[in-house]
Amino acid sequence: MSPAKVLIAQGGGPTAVINQSLVGAVLAARAFPNVQAVYGARHGVRGVLQEDFVDLTGEDINHLERVAATPASALGSTRDKPDTAYCLQMLEVIKAHGITHFFYIGGNDSSDTVRILMEQAACAGHPLAGMHIPKTIDNDLMGNDHTPGFPSAAKFVAQAFAGADLDNAALPGVYVAVVMGRHAGFLTAASALARQGVNDGPHLIYLPERVFDIDRFLADVKDVYARLGRCVVAVSEGIHDASGKSIIEQLAQRKGGAAERDAHGNVQLSGTGALADLLCEEIKSRLGIKRVRGDTFGYLQRSFLGCVSDVDAREARDVGAVALRLALKNGATGSVAIRRDAAVPGYVSEYSVQPLEAVAAKTRVMEDAFINAAGNDVTEAFVGYLQPLLGGNLPQAERLRGRPVTKKMKPQG
Amino acid sequence: MSPAKVLIAQGGGPTAVINQSLVGAVLAARAFPNVQAVYGARHGVRGVLQEDFVDLTGEDINHLERVAATPASALGSTRDKPDTAYCLQMLEVIKAHGITHFFYIGGNDSSDTVRILMEQAACAGHPLAGMHIPKTIDNDLMGNDHTPGFPSAAKFVAQAFAGADLDNAALPGVYVAVVMGRHAGFLTAASALARQGVNDGPHLIYLPERVFDIDRFLADVKDVYARLGRCVVAVSEGIHDASGKSIIEQLAQRKGGAAERDAHGNVQLSGTGALADLLCEEIKSRLGIKRVRGDTFGYLQRSFLGCVSDVDAREARDVGAVALRLALKNGATGSVAIRRDAAVPGYVSEYSVQPLEAVAAKTRVMEDAFINAAGNDVTEAFVGYLQPLLGGNLPQAERLRGRPVTKKMKPQG
Repeated sequence: MSPAKVLIAQGGGPTAVINQSLVGAVLAARAFPNVQAVYGARHGVRGVLQEDFVDLTGEDINHLERVAATPASALGSTRDKPDTAYCLQMLEVIKAHGITHFFYIGGNDSSDTVRILMEQAACAGHPLAGMHIPKTIDNDLMGNDHTPGFPSAAKFVAQAFAGADLDNAALPGVYVAVVMGRHAGFLTAASALARQGVNDGPHLIYLPERVFDIDRFLADVKDVYARLGRCVVAVSEGIHDASGKSIIEQLAQRKGGAAERDAHGNVQLSGTGALADLLCEEIKSRLGIKRVRGDTFGYLQRSFLGCVSDVDAREARDVGAVALRLALKNGATGSVAIRRDAAVPGYVSEYSVQPLEAVAAKTRVMEDAFINAAGNDVTEAFVGYLQPLLGGNLPQAERLRGRPVTKKMKPQG
Repeated sequence: MSPAKVLIAQGGGPTAVINQSLVGAVLAARAFPNVQAVYGARHGVRGVLQEDFVDLTGEDINHLERVAATPASALGSTRDKPDTAYCLQMLEVIKAHGITHFFYIGGNDSSDTVRILMEQAACAGHPLAGMHIPKTIDNDLMGNDHTPGFPSAAKFVAQAFAGADLDNAALPGVYVAVVMGRHAGFLTAASALARQGVNDGPHLIYLPERVFDIDRFLADVKDVYARLGRCVVAVSEGIHDASGKSIIEQLAQRKGGAAERDAHGNVQLSGTGALADLLCEEIKSRLGIKRVRGDTFGYLQRSFLGCVSDVDAREARDVGAVALRLALKNGATGSVAIRRDAAVPGYVSEYSVQPLEAVAAKTRVMEDAFINAAGNDVTEAFVGYLQPLLGGNLPQAERLRGRPVTKKMKPQG
């Protein structure tokens, strides 16, 4: 085998297990005798452009294992989406350092970056192998049963709703919590895993895969509240009307304001509590319910220290290692995918490689079979899909039973 | 010993360990041969008024243990603050059921309820013993080193900030998170326990014990951002100006709006993301920083399923059991308090009883020794105070080291 030099980077939003993939990749690379160096790029492709590398070739393995168990991209991340010119500049740096293998841990934008970079390297005649290692809490990568990072974020969302539902049962009212996910509702749907009994919340779940109608939403809340005296609602930050206009923008405009926009002109959905607040105001003013509370799970759902699915941690480690082995052994280029072996009883996952084009800049959304007919809940099929991914360390809640005591006072009134 | 009949209730905001106190009390009561019945009142004092009791006398112990490990008041809670008339009605129900001992697990309002009820029982000549069992995530009960529920909420806040800080380091910008606590800043201060290294966040902490000045806040953020290229800020929901006016109200009015108010006329601080959003807007518009994100930890910090300090769980169990034993054995009336034995090396807590008047309707705030001179951080003394309460199961984060690689490209520009 000819000498190899490996460069690894992390892109996009951090997850709880993205460092498992990093360490899986680093250790797998170091196991190959022909690998002369393993570099990490600081802050993703920006670090490649700026030649900002750290040398992980001899880094202590115990230190790396502690990093693996730490949430959020340890190398730093970036939101840069490189075009051809950007990739050509990256290629110059890659050539200067004699990098032979490039690995990018990220979502669909990151896979597109690998695709462009490979194209340019081929054009320039520079021998470069490259793999995309999947990662995203949104679970929106094509060709994957699920993506590393999603199960741990789903576990956080399920535990958060389980607790919030118990809190709401103790002090009844309406509780609305907003969950991340602009186009794909998987993470919001994970709230359903909080339920253990028949009347447990969340009682309603709204996903970006369905058109959101504020009047139907209010009617749904009214129904549940009339039946149970309380109502817990999970809402995706990406809910929108029939025209595709986001609800946060619609409600903000109705109030005479405007929603925040990012540099790309997209309405800012995360890092603001506006959607939950606006929905709560609608419920208060139009349904006349007094105790209405809104939460936005925000950055906690992807970064909270100490909420990891053990299945997710293992698989994230695996996809990093698999990518390195396939690229170094077979010269493979592509995107590692997680598949579920449906033929085997229980949960068994396996890894394969798909072409970068199959993943790059595409978005998977929830299958119709995962969403109920009314569009305000998930199906049993979704619960069955997600359950095994949450791992073996999911805490359980128990509601107090107890025989009612016979009343002794005369009825009043 | 004469026959006894025990009634237990839970009041105020739920915590992660309030059911430990309930189960500690139930099991301690059942150990006394003269106890004929152990009742729980549904939804606190309201359940007493409405005669809504469940019989826990023979409830299965394994079921109770699972309830103990579940967050949020299992009996249900209430925000009712009984006056004398309310307490007199409660007393009628208590007499009708032959209740001899009443226990209320709650904060300073709940201790005041026990105080009034005991007074009325004495006036009416009804032999009733009563104890207040402490609980509050705010840590604001007088005469206590700390209160059950606070350490677990503090653990949640510390783990949340540890993760959010790693996330912010990966994708730099300004991050502002709002933590519960109207008058006492202990829970916001707990964010400091997220730090492991010198430049770890939160970099700034604002508490309701100090006057909040928006211009000084912006200057602080600007300084940190200039130094580190990022800034993580912990803000108490209760921050206010020199006149005592809440900042949320001030900023909302400046925007031409109004803050939400509850039935008592208090500005609604929890269950809304307004304060974080308003502070982020100020930072964006006045400091010109692009990536500014706000989170509000909301109900997760007191209810999240699966984030409990083992020290807190043990002490919450103990205060429930101690209250029952003292009342049943010695006929004690009062409020159980947790003290720290400073004479013993390491952390040792002990329990005592203080008069209800010492706790009732009073509010403890953070000691001056716990707040830095600039009023934008806590002291080492606070960290030393809180550290042992977080328990033995606190996850650790590890930042990636790695030798920088020498650059090979010619400097550009």
